[in-house]
Amino acid sequence: MAECLLLDKSNVKEFLDSFDTILTDCDGVLWESAAEYPIPGVPETIEQLKKLGKKVFYVSNNSTKTRAEYVVKCKKMQYEATEEEIVGCAYTTAQYIKHTLGYEGKVYIIGSSGIAGEFDAEGIQHFGVGKDEWNGRGLRDLLDIQIDPQVKCVVVGFDLHFNYVKLFTAHQYLSDPGCAFIATNTDSALGGGIFPATGPIVSAVECSTGRKATVCGKPQEPLGDILVQQHGIDPKRTVMIGDRLDTDMALAHNCGMKGLLVLTGFAQLEDVRYLAASNSTAHQKQIPHYYLPNLADLGKLITKIGLV
Amino acid sequence: MAECLLLDKSNVKEFLDSFDTILTDCDGVLWESAAEYPIPGVPETIEQLKKLGKKVFYVSNNSTKTRAEYVVKCKKMQYEATEEEIVGCAYTTAQYIKHTLGYEGKVYIIGSSGIAGEFDAEGIQHFGVGKDEWNGRGLRDLLDIQIDPQVKCVVVGFDLHFNYVKLFTAHQYLSDPGCAFIATNTDSALGGGIFPATGPIVSAVECSTGRKATVCGKPQEPLGDILVQQHGIDPKRTVMIGDRLDTDMALAHNCGMKGLLVLTGFAQLEDVRYLAASNSTAHQKQIPHYYLPNLADLGKLITKIGLV
Repeated sequence: MAECLLLDKSNVKEFLDSFDTILTDCDGVLWESAAEYPIPGVPETIEQLKKLGKKVFYVSNNSTKTRAEYVVKCKKMQYEATEEEIVGCAYTTAQYIKHTLGYEGKVYIIGSSGIAGEFDAEGIQHFGVGKDEWNGRGLRDLLDIQIDPQVKCVVVGFDLHFNYVKLFTAHQYLSDPGCAFIATNTDSALGGGIFPATGPIVSAVECSTGRKATVCGKPQEPLGDILVQQHGIDPKRTVMIGDRLDTDMALAHNCGMKGLLVLTGFAQLEDVRYLAASNSTAHQKQIPHYYLPNLADLGKLITKIGLV
Repeated sequence: MAECLLLDKSNVKEFLDSFDTILTDCDGVLWESAAEYPIPGVPETIEQLKKLGKKVFYVSNNSTKTRAEYVVKCKKMQYEATEEEIVGCAYTTAQYIKHTLGYEGKVYIIGSSGIAGEFDAEGIQHFGVGKDEWNGRGLRDLLDIQIDPQVKCVVVGFDLHFNYVKLFTAHQYLSDPGCAFIATNTDSALGGGIFPATGPIVSAVECSTGRKATVCGKPQEPLGDILVQQHGIDPKRTVMIGDRLDTDMALAHNCGMKGLLVLTGFAQLEDVRYLAASNSTAHQKQIPHYYLPNLADLGKLITKIGLV
């Protein structure tokens, strides 16, 4: 098994010396899914890390909020963050379209106001957010839906109003091989597994079109590229803290960072053991370098060794 | 390459002697997708085959029609069929639930009236067909949706009214590992590739739940089992005629039948060459045993060799 070390008094100093930048997931690390308050002790731990000179970015696969809205959410949860410190997948998707693709046309969105807000901030033209009800009777009536010839890019994110009409509309645009196909993220479920997330919606569009989306959220490289290019991070001197193996820890591996798993959210140690017992390279690339039961434990260790 | 022979004067007699039963796909074989009339010469060919003593079943992955409705459609297209000769995937799904699973509880359906009709015919209790609009504001409001504890089976078919609320509802039932997960079929697109089909909807539910559906349509074994058990066919003496490799020809291989591809619908000879050049076993298992440009050509061959 690739080593996954419990952080303790013996190795925490070496760990802290190994990075300057922290990327932290939010839900399951800083607060629990449905909670109205932070995980006790974690806001203080983030403050300790900042006092040690660490730069903190909040990295989320939640595409329903803009960075400005995330600042408000963080504040409510007792984390002081600026917009520049928030790296949401709606934001990385806008960055990817504007700067990596250099696309200047119109975008058809399956998604929510978080994506619309980040696109507006970058001056990207878009439509599709919100309800798209349809009063046709049969399949053929769908052909009456107007297709905008200026659209050469489809973005798929989380959408409570996702329906067959939106699937059909995306399918029509994507039948042109010149139309880019981008997903904010591919998480399968959210809210502790209770709700279908963005992944199922992306799957539906991938299945109907026979195409694969470029993913701008964790764990894919476009997100790492944006952090390097726009925020000047050095992956070798960066740690990713998260509660998921397939997104947070995979991002660490994909981008050459260290990964610290906390057990306050989705993944548990038995999940790490399952990956470690697998021969799949994809599974090996999700094994954390370190783990802690709770991020607040890192604060306790920092205090114990007398750093802050 | 596994052999895929053009049927001609030299081998048609041997071909005709090798089977008693014909399973024929409809759309792309007997008529074209959007057409209001049959492919010229094909109704006559089916009549010739019947005169030669062949038993014909019409096997379709269209879950939106009951067998009774399919009889009407066939008649309109100049094919005389009885309900017993129609094997649609809504019907095979009902048969699978009633006879293979022996399930007697309620079924939650993502699908259309074709499934509801076949379930009513078998006395299977069900709900879910039709619009399921939702006026909640946020994700959490979905938790107010009542879950019926009697449901231990979810069926996914083609549904023009598919939306996030239906996805969430299926996800909730399927979070119980004791709840069966059945799909009528997994075709990716329909109407010549213009419309997303059932596959994308099944993909979405599979992705959110992390489960795989049991598929009751082509090319899966449950359909073959029903044809053997309920209709007494002998797979070794059966030919499957179709226009798709991944459903029709794969069914022939999966059930030990012969496969005859016609080029009047989805697949073309270059698709067969692509499969033949692949090392994948799944691809090899989609290669037709025979092909013809058009099923009407079989009628011409039968006339030419003077059989009918």
